[in-house]
Amino acid sequence: MVSNKPRGVSILGSTGSIGCNALDLIERLEGLESGRFRVVALTAASNADRLIEQVKRHRPLLACIARESLARQVRDGVAGTTTRVVAGAEGLLEAATLEEADLVLAGIVGAAGLPPTYAAVESGKTVALANKEALVLAGDLMISAARRSGATLLPVDSEHNALHQCLRGESVDEVRRLVLTASGGPFLRRPELDLSRATPEEALAHPTWVMGRKISIDSATLMNKALEVIEARWLYGLPAEKISVIIHPQSIIHSMVEFVDGSFVAQLGATDMRHPIQYALTWPRRCETPLEPLDLAALKGMTFQEPDLDRFPCLSFGWRALRQGGTMPAALNAANEVAVEAFLAGRIPFTEIARIIDHVMETHRPAEASSLDVILQADAWARETAAGWAARSSTPATSAAPVAPVAHDGPKHTGR
Amino acid sequence: MVSNKPRGVSILGSTGSIGCNALDLIERLEGLESGRFRVVALTAASNADRLIEQVKRHRPLLACIARESLARQVRDGVAGTTTRVVAGAEGLLEAATLEEADLVLAGIVGAAGLPPTYAAVESGKTVALANKEALVLAGDLMISAARRSGATLLPVDSEHNALHQCLRGESVDEVRRLVLTASGGPFLRRPELDLSRATPEEALAHPTWVMGRKISIDSATLMNKALEVIEARWLYGLPAEKISVIIHPQSIIHSMVEFVDGSFVAQLGATDMRHPIQYALTWPRRCETPLEPLDLAALKGMTFQEPDLDRFPCLSFGWRALRQGGTMPAALNAANEVAVEAFLAGRIPFTEIARIIDHVMETHRPAEASSLDVILQADAWARETAAGWAARSSTPATSAAPVAPVAHDGPKHTGR
Repeated sequence: MVSNKPRGVSILGSTGSIGCNALDLIERLEGLESGRFRVVALTAASNADRLIEQVKRHRPLLACIARESLARQVRDGVAGTTTRVVAGAEGLLEAATLEEADLVLAGIVGAAGLPPTYAAVESGKTVALANKEALVLAGDLMISAARRSGATLLPVDSEHNALHQCLRGESVDEVRRLVLTASGGPFLRRPELDLSRATPEEALAHPTWVMGRKISIDSATLMNKALEVIEARWLYGLPAEKISVIIHPQSIIHSMVEFVDGSFVAQLGATDMRHPIQYALTWPRRCETPLEPLDLAALKGMTFQEPDLDRFPCLSFGWRALRQGGTMPAALNAANEVAVEAFLAGRIPFTEIARIIDHVMETHRPAEASSLDVILQADAWARETAAGWAARSSTPATSAAPVAPVAHDGPKHTGR
Repeated sequence: MVSNKPRGVSILGSTGSIGCNALDLIERLEGLESGRFRVVALTAASNADRLIEQVKRHRPLLACIARESLARQVRDGVAGTTTRVVAGAEGLLEAATLEEADLVLAGIVGAAGLPPTYAAVESGKTVALANKEALVLAGDLMISAARRSGATLLPVDSEHNALHQCLRGESVDEVRRLVLTASGGPFLRRPELDLSRATPEEALAHPTWVMGRKISIDSATLMNKALEVIEARWLYGLPAEKISVIIHPQSIIHSMVEFVDGSFVAQLGATDMRHPIQYALTWPRRCETPLEPLDLAALKGMTFQEPDLDRFPCLSFGWRALRQGGTMPAALNAANEVAVEAFLAGRIPFTEIARIIDHVMETHRPAEASSLDVILQADAWARETAAGWAARSSTPATSAAPVAPVAHDGPKHTGR
């Protein structure tokens, strides 16, 4: 680390998958060389028991949980510590902007993470973004705020983190295209499968990454890549047509950059979220890791193929939303959240996810994404509209109702 | 390019493979956007006809050829141009240090390229190194001279060029190891082959790169990687044990860097020497290339495996020479040149190459590599010693005389 003062870390969403991984990693890094990190704030939505445990272990200055009733439970649970326990949206904003926080890890999944992430960016923090929605919904706002405040955005998504590494010492003017790699999800290798019959259990069986349920379904539909295309557009300031996706089932290359001179630079690593978290925690330095290294010689082989937009229409929605602009990415994201939830609840078939989103995007009149309010209004509208479609199209997940093909308009070349 | 003044390029060894590729590329780059490059000097060993042709086409200020008799021929051939034609070692030094040369491409193969390359480094030029020997024989001298003069060394070897790209914006302190990729050469996939029966024709049939004869044999013995280990040690200032080699038969990843945080950064590209030449010509910028891009989706797959030091003992000689230090790398290189020549002439079997080098290294008492003279003395001694061994061990290349195994002492882990 550059200075000897421990880096103050605030973790928004500390009881979720990213938060737990980050705390585990900080503990291991401190085990290698103590005094580098100090956990200053932890926030949770509803898991009071885990938050209590985390507070006792990491002794932050501040802990926040969504509801006041839960906050009381946490206060009781951590009695005897000096941690101040707060509740609700205001508490979350405090955790995001705490003076002692040098780095804010934005790990709250969904649109709920938007306001505190935006607040952290506005207050000039170094923000480790593990929240896709911050950039998908409010990319322009976030980037403008970071420019004004001097905040640094560090992506924790393995793909964007890889791009960040590939672009060190490079100029984005000299980028021909960003190449996001996609595992292809659990349905890549089943060409004959009627996707309308796919069950939640099958869709959740991700081949290379262990992830949350929502993200696993996004990976099965390739919607995760559509969202990543949007994120990449904002993070790196490149137009949609310079962002491509290639299927790489082994998930060893986490993404790559093709430069105008024909050279590709790629980042490779083990499929462990703690690697990109470590990168963000220690940036701009790289530090010895306590994690397992990638075993190159043990790899059987790395392969690449073009994504099939006919079978995975969700992928094309990323470019479509960017071209339409404004609040369209917010509508896309909200419709997807609702559709995925309906699929996981067994209320709609797998292929209906894309159809619902398509309908919502067809209907949405995008407004300029000029404020969080405007964006969250579009989000709410899209949720309601998608829920309506989901209710109407409800069919047991096991039925094989014929599904009309969904129009897609991805770029001609998604990879090369 | 940063300035509007054309970059003056002096090409040492312009009629060889690197030189011809560089001139072809400069012409294509000028075709895309003229006024970026100016060829200011060209030098050749003996190919007067090609040098005449090149002078007429590129109109350099200076042309040099080894012998005065050839220089007269070139002067006649380029009559009417303003190019000054000189001869011999002094002419070569002039081409290497010409005031108008901003960048010197050191493309002379073998120890002959050493003095002009050193002169270019001493005079503070940006030196694009396509000459392995400069660093293998005189790495310490070259790096010290570059530090004194402010010269920039840019490797044109695809592997070191890849490492250069992977290390942009990074700190070598944070490197766990450099991973040089090796195609494995033409004998990688023939496990049952008795290598002592391998013919020059078989050894010259390189699977992925079209190269000169000497380099093709070095690729078949894996000596090229041994020499690259030595080069990497000097270029990047890392100890021998932080440099590893992995077999990657497809030659798509040109090399990679593993950082202490467990992240790998790799450079990928088409197997065309003009790509790294372009990188050096336009550095620190990257410019639109006239060359064919890599077709990622058309790749069948990328694989990796550990090198087999028992079948390819030459590979281990790189680490061995670095550990012994001083003039040992020079002795290694000279012995290899003599042995390869003897093999190509059909005077010794393939497996005798490693044995001759092993004998020379066993016998050599390394001196401190304190000057070019000391180094060239070691080179001369090793050539003579190797020639003696080659004469004694002369056997037709087709015989299958039993060959004693050669001791090797590469690092325990050449890759992981």
